[in-house]
Amino acid sequence: MSKRYDSDKVRDLVHRIYRAYGFTEEQSAEVAKTLVYTDLHGIASHGVQRMVMYDHFIQNGKIRVNSRPEIVKETDVSAVVDANFGLGQLNGIYSMNLAIKKAKAHGVGIVTTKRSGHYGIAGYYANMAADQGLIGMSSTNSRPAMLPTHATQAFVGTNPIAFAMPAEPHNFIYDAATSTVPQGKIEVYRKLEKDLPAFWVAKDGDQEINDHNDTEDLDALRDPLSNVGLTPLGGVREETGSHKGFGLAVIVEVFTSILSLGNTSTEITPEDLQVGPCQSFIAIDPAIFGDVDQIIKRFSEYLQQIRDLPAIPGKKIYVAGDKEAIAYEDRKQNGLEIDDKTLAEVKAIADRLGVSYGALDMA
Amino acid sequence: MSKRYDSDKVRDLVHRIYRAYGFTEEQSAEVAKTLVYTDLHGIASHGVQRMVMYDHFIQNGKIRVNSRPEIVKETDVSAVVDANFGLGQLNGIYSMNLAIKKAKAHGVGIVTTKRSGHYGIAGYYANMAADQGLIGMSSTNSRPAMLPTHATQAFVGTNPIAFAMPAEPHNFIYDAATSTVPQGKIEVYRKLEKDLPAFWVAKDGDQEINDHNDTEDLDALRDPLSNVGLTPLGGVREETGSHKGFGLAVIVEVFTSILSLGNTSTEITPEDLQVGPCQSFIAIDPAIFGDVDQIIKRFSEYLQQIRDLPAIPGKKIYVAGDKEAIAYEDRKQNGLEIDDKTLAEVKAIADRLGVSYGALDMA
Repeated sequence: MSKRYDSDKVRDLVHRIYRAYGFTEEQSAEVAKTLVYTDLHGIASHGVQRMVMYDHFIQNGKIRVNSRPEIVKETDVSAVVDANFGLGQLNGIYSMNLAIKKAKAHGVGIVTTKRSGHYGIAGYYANMAADQGLIGMSSTNSRPAMLPTHATQAFVGTNPIAFAMPAEPHNFIYDAATSTVPQGKIEVYRKLEKDLPAFWVAKDGDQEINDHNDTEDLDALRDPLSNVGLTPLGGVREETGSHKGFGLAVIVEVFTSILSLGNTSTEITPEDLQVGPCQSFIAIDPAIFGDVDQIIKRFSEYLQQIRDLPAIPGKKIYVAGDKEAIAYEDRKQNGLEIDDKTLAEVKAIADRLGVSYGALDMA
Repeated sequence: MSKRYDSDKVRDLVHRIYRAYGFTEEQSAEVAKTLVYTDLHGIASHGVQRMVMYDHFIQNGKIRVNSRPEIVKETDVSAVVDANFGLGQLNGIYSMNLAIKKAKAHGVGIVTTKRSGHYGIAGYYANMAADQGLIGMSSTNSRPAMLPTHATQAFVGTNPIAFAMPAEPHNFIYDAATSTVPQGKIEVYRKLEKDLPAFWVAKDGDQEINDHNDTEDLDALRDPLSNVGLTPLGGVREETGSHKGFGLAVIVEVFTSILSLGNTSTEITPEDLQVGPCQSFIAIDPAIFGDVDQIIKRFSEYLQQIRDLPAIPGKKIYVAGDKEAIAYEDRKQNGLEIDDKTLAEVKAIADRLGVSYGALDMA
């Protein structure tokens, strides 16, 4: 079950929890903003749902509260950042701001960040650039979760690709795991006690797992050495394009762990405190190609042409960012949708930290 | 049926055909090289199979034999090229060389090219950069062929994404349509009289077409206003990730037609001589991030770890570029595999142009 909660009250609670961990006022505000932004846009898998995981990492020292990211190599158009195991969201904001600065000065900025942490939705960082009139892209690697085509062991991360660009009536924001669904989506379905509606999880390479009660197999998803993994975008067969989703995940690995010489997916474990995921942040100024107003107008018209196509009866055509914009209007007015288990987890964290936990209901 | 033919003899024949069209000696050599490279790497859909289409366009003036690409806007890291409707392959080679030059001088080069033509495999251009130690990327838009998720009318192109990077024992080369398969693959299956083995073509948005004898529906694939289209990578349902493949196609549209202010997919028709596809070419020097030898070594090791994973019984694990490398060794030794219909088409072109057509068989 999930109920509705006031986004401002939730943001305030998250803020106070992060202050209690020892983050600065500004850092806590930024983290609370990213997590609530995510729930406001309807992406429940990566919002406050993720707090219990971060809490675990802050407690075991995998997330280091007092560390700061530093630039270890830099050119006019690029940088490598060592995140020193700070909180992923803070590294992400730092790194994307660096890419944006370079794009504004030199047209393009490509930043790759190593020894980071789970940074939430990649789309948040891509959209930071779009909000400033630029094209933004971001990706992260992650612990082994996806099955390479024909493999019986999870190996690559779910490695999302995010791309954002200014458009009317709202920014185009693409943010998608290169697996059929991200890890967090499985967690949400399990919390809601719903069976998986498509071939999202495979055992032994090609056996479909759908039953949410199949605890043993679904728990094994979190074990990088197991024979259970997420399917690549395109499924598990070459005929359906499995190698395409898997290949995109490898490309993400290049921009994150390979270019930064950080940890590849296979080296990332929740236990080892000396390893962390890597992320990439790209900003491009469309002005280096042509008149920005004209470019955005043309793009917006193209997107509208797509929305206006004839559709399958009972279905609607969305372009990337549309559903999130609709969710935002709804959540802003009617509150965030948070499931009972997640809320209980957050309350337990607040209680343990001695953070006062008032009612979060809509006023 | 398809038989084996000597790659040097085929290259020579293609070269002489392009000379007969009026291309220069150097241009003809480049075109012949790209087409035979494609067949040598086992990508039959985009090699000499495409000559009949180019022949049609050269005859009707859509491909202008004597035009040359020109730079219409430029910065240190970017350029917009007007291809003036020259042959796509020649525009591609010109534009990627420009991106490579910029990457060598400034770390990154992004070139977007408008009013071009069908340029064959995107991977060829990406690999030009990888062959010089750089990361290369290329994409093209194309006439409407793919169904946006939930739409009943084809609208976006098959918009491939190519990415290449140096690695051992051979370059990593990803080259994939953002539809489940490219248009050319359907043509090859029809020429071979084989049914489509998966959900590659949809009618009315979600009805699967597999029968290679279903001439009416499969011919309609070529009509941009029809109710038949290629499925996005991820199929036609959101549950299987349809919106992800479709969204990637829109991102390709940004880098090709939107930034260059050229023709979007929907404007491209075989008939209109004043419109043409747009392409993008990106080169990145890995040296701006770190020691290149170390980066390539680490990447090569990562790819090998994937190849060495346990596999589904009877299946093998490939990373992008592996199958093409295997095909190359085979074709180099045993000849190109060209189907009878394609060979008859090429022979008819040679005959019409008065180009002598000797035996192409292996010596």
